[in-house]
Amino acid sequence: MRVEPLCPDAVAQAASRIRPYITQTPLLKSGLLDGWLGHHIVFKVEGLQKIGAFKVRGALNTLLALKEQRRLPEQVVAFSSGNHAQAVAYAARLLDVRATVLIPRDASAVKRQATEAYGARVIVTDDRNEAESRINEFTTKGAFLLHPYDSDSVIAGQGTACYEALQTGLKPDAIFATCGGGGWLSGTFLAAGLSAPETPVFGAEPKQANDAAQSLRRGEIVHLTESPDTIADGARTLSVSARTFHYLRQLAGFYEIDERDIVYWTQWLIHLLKTTVEPTSAVAMAGAFEWLKHEPEPRNVLVMLSGGNIAASTQARVWATDQLATPPRVR
Amino acid sequence: MRVEPLCPDAVAQAASRIRPYITQTPLLKSGLLDGWLGHHIVFKVEGLQKIGAFKVRGALNTLLALKEQRRLPEQVVAFSSGNHAQAVAYAARLLDVRATVLIPRDASAVKRQATEAYGARVIVTDDRNEAESRINEFTTKGAFLLHPYDSDSVIAGQGTACYEALQTGLKPDAIFATCGGGGWLSGTFLAAGLSAPETPVFGAEPKQANDAAQSLRRGEIVHLTESPDTIADGARTLSVSARTFHYLRQLAGFYEIDERDIVYWTQWLIHLLKTTVEPTSAVAMAGAFEWLKHEPEPRNVLVMLSGGNIAASTQARVWATDQLATPPRVR
Repeated sequence: MRVEPLCPDAVAQAASRIRPYITQTPLLKSGLLDGWLGHHIVFKVEGLQKIGAFKVRGALNTLLALKEQRRLPEQVVAFSSGNHAQAVAYAARLLDVRATVLIPRDASAVKRQATEAYGARVIVTDDRNEAESRINEFTTKGAFLLHPYDSDSVIAGQGTACYEALQTGLKPDAIFATCGGGGWLSGTFLAAGLSAPETPVFGAEPKQANDAAQSLRRGEIVHLTESPDTIADGARTLSVSARTFHYLRQLAGFYEIDERDIVYWTQWLIHLLKTTVEPTSAVAMAGAFEWLKHEPEPRNVLVMLSGGNIAASTQARVWATDQLATPPRVR
Repeated sequence: MRVEPLCPDAVAQAASRIRPYITQTPLLKSGLLDGWLGHHIVFKVEGLQKIGAFKVRGALNTLLALKEQRRLPEQVVAFSSGNHAQAVAYAARLLDVRATVLIPRDASAVKRQATEAYGARVIVTDDRNEAESRINEFTTKGAFLLHPYDSDSVIAGQGTACYEALQTGLKPDAIFATCGGGGWLSGTFLAAGLSAPETPVFGAEPKQANDAAQSLRRGEIVHLTESPDTIADGARTLSVSARTFHYLRQLAGFYEIDERDIVYWTQWLIHLLKTTVEPTSAVAMAGAFEWLKHEPEPRNVLVMLSGGNIAASTQARVWATDQLATPPRVR
């Protein structure tokens, strides 16, 4: 598949399009953390976004763009066990479009409840094959499939978070974001290209779900055969897409993060920022920490925190050990 | 002991005194929660305050008032296993006063680290008797003892959080706050008396640490003999003081909360508000929920959330069961 690259300006257009409907999420920092590290870190906190994650940006940008083109569908369909499910439900309700979300049986009850509370019809599926055949049923009847990352309008929408951060006048020396399917990271890369073209953008991924890192090493997309066992549930995607891989290849670097470090940074970010930070988001901070270890001069870093929705069972795994006894030090 | 009641205006004075040094913490709400309950709840979120809890208000008001009177001491001393320790360290550093904080050996490492990071000298003590004799050593040498609740300037300072909330134009039908030593609740009561004199103020306390409820029933202060076993560590005080009891007796009502309900509301508030909420703070929401159950008409409620500092071991206890599977319903 040949990819037509997005013009970075698509991110700026998406930002003005979705602005009235989303939260301008805060940039947070921690004086204690900066003191310990000897660097300055600013966090863009999408856990405080509508539905608790950045995903609403891409879903809204997609539906609003369709509306501008007078192509708004009567129904959207999506498949997700996580934040994308809630994002599609939320965006569809806002635009008065029916939404059907297919959710795997093992998804957490709380995410299913929230998706229903936002007004979507939820269909529980037993496996991926069943989900795909059900999706086909809907799309052949005219429903619009809102893909979580393999979509230009979704990628441009996700990029608006980094764009917002950079529009405040922030001049980071490096930007970090987590890689799942690659939509969030690709959007971040495009936003940096638009607003801070000299700034390197780095990706980070759980080592136990390192399909993107493997793909980058081999120069071709590697597909995992089964859902990887990482606490960072937003990074359990089996592969990136040709569309997102196009941008990932242009990154300044890519980190693979141990589960222990994901848990460590989840605890510390929750503790220091006083906001819920998903393990998936902590992956980006762990990547930033690896980079900062080798920077002798004080650096300014922007870490993109993707979301703050954590199931109770995941919280129990996060807090099973006490990581707060050992503050972070780079030197 | 005869108590000279504070003039409610002391809260307004404290608010102007400390305003330049504290965070005007946000008022948060949850559309999902309001929908489920059929009531409107606004949360004053002191977890987003400096040091992660309201305690900095009382400590700062005390030291700033002393400074106005040209009586600022060279050294302050305090005894605390929790948020008061960090508050005293923070306020003392701001005013260039030396601080010594006595912390019991079983306090969490993370609270000790933070107290030291704010520049205080920490002395670890084995028991309360040792702590008291060490405090006497310091006060006989001229150090000022900053008590966590048995102090007019501390009570007035704690009241500034509710005062701030009411100054935004909020008109609640009822206000809820947790009772530990009673400083937070007394200050909240005074603030309501000043800005919303018709609004009933309710207290809530863990049933397993119900010294205040027992005291209110008997009409005299009941002292627990040992530290009560509740997950709400901010409410483990052994007794209220004559000074705070004076205000507690004027409350509209008082709730005693089961441990299970404390855990339930800690999980739900963290999940819905995306901010860290201490179990001690969730006690107030559990009280509000009990009240709302018996209100047939939709009510507007202000719930004062005292802080967001949670040790990893407490987080592990909070998330040991999944309370998010059952959303709250009043009817």
